[in-house]
Amino acid sequence: MPTDLPTERAVRKPGTMELDPAGEGIALDETPRLIASNKVEGTAVYDGTGRHLGSVHNFMVDKVSGQVAYAVLAFGGFLGLGENRHPLPWRALRYSTELGGYVVDIDPGALAGAPSHGPGEDSFADPDYQKQLEDYYGSRFQAA
Amino acid sequence: MPTDLPTERAVRKPGTMELDPAGEGIALDETPRLIASNKVEGTAVYDGTGRHLGSVHNFMVDKVSGQVAYAVLAFGGFLGLGENRHPLPWRALRYSTELGGYVVDIDPGALAGAPSHGPGEDSFADPDYQKQLEDYYGSRFQAA
Repeated sequence: MPTDLPTERAVRKPGTMELDPAGEGIALDETPRLIASNKVEGTAVYDGTGRHLGSVHNFMVDKVSGQVAYAVLAFGGFLGLGENRHPLPWRALRYSTELGGYVVDIDPGALAGAPSHGPGEDSFADPDYQKQLEDYYGSRFQAA
Repeated sequence: MPTDLPTERAVRKPGTMELDPAGEGIALDETPRLIASNKVEGTAVYDGTGRHLGSVHNFMVDKVSGQVAYAVLAFGGFLGLGENRHPLPWRALRYSTELGGYVVDIDPGALAGAPSHGPGEDSFADPDYQKQLEDYYGSRFQAA
């Protein structure tokens, strides 16, 4: 398991979805500019120290603008985060080619205190949920 | 199978990803504004007369901007379109609450003549592929 902090060179600009352009078998669902929706789903997520946290469960897209808004992370009970889904502003994720996944500079404690929902909960149907997320993460992850 | 042309009221603005807000079990992955990536995948696609064409295989997202660029449609050999994947500009799709899927105002002949790729082909790795798509569809589907 990778433990080193990803180098600056290998870390993509915050908010980009780029996966490893040198990886195997990526041509089908990745171009220099585009990536397939089902390739983002399931991609590993690491913290800033390279520790594996979980994976991207899916992501939320603005229906009107077609803009990706949140990555919904699944941690599978790791680090006491439970089975809950944790939506993070898309801009909080950057891609590390060394780790082969997304990196989020946030410690598990801050994730544990963030708004989250169970696999069977419909929190996104509540208009306040997005506001809670922005209130919680807004100061941590500024728009690029 | 629905055969009526969807009414104006029930048809969403072109380029929007909205699914049926009155449908069952949608609260989990749909809000008034956001929709989950894995809910878009697999959604049915109809032509302008309400004829079922196929479904959304996945969609391509701009890695830098996080903007949805193409819906990749699968037709499963229907109407002689073969097993190929047919990328359509996202703006070409609109959602019909009556049909419970996306509507594309294009006839199968025009789809058959459009750039497409096999399930195992890596056409999106070719920078010319997007240009071919825009050349083909640009005049048919203007940006909103």
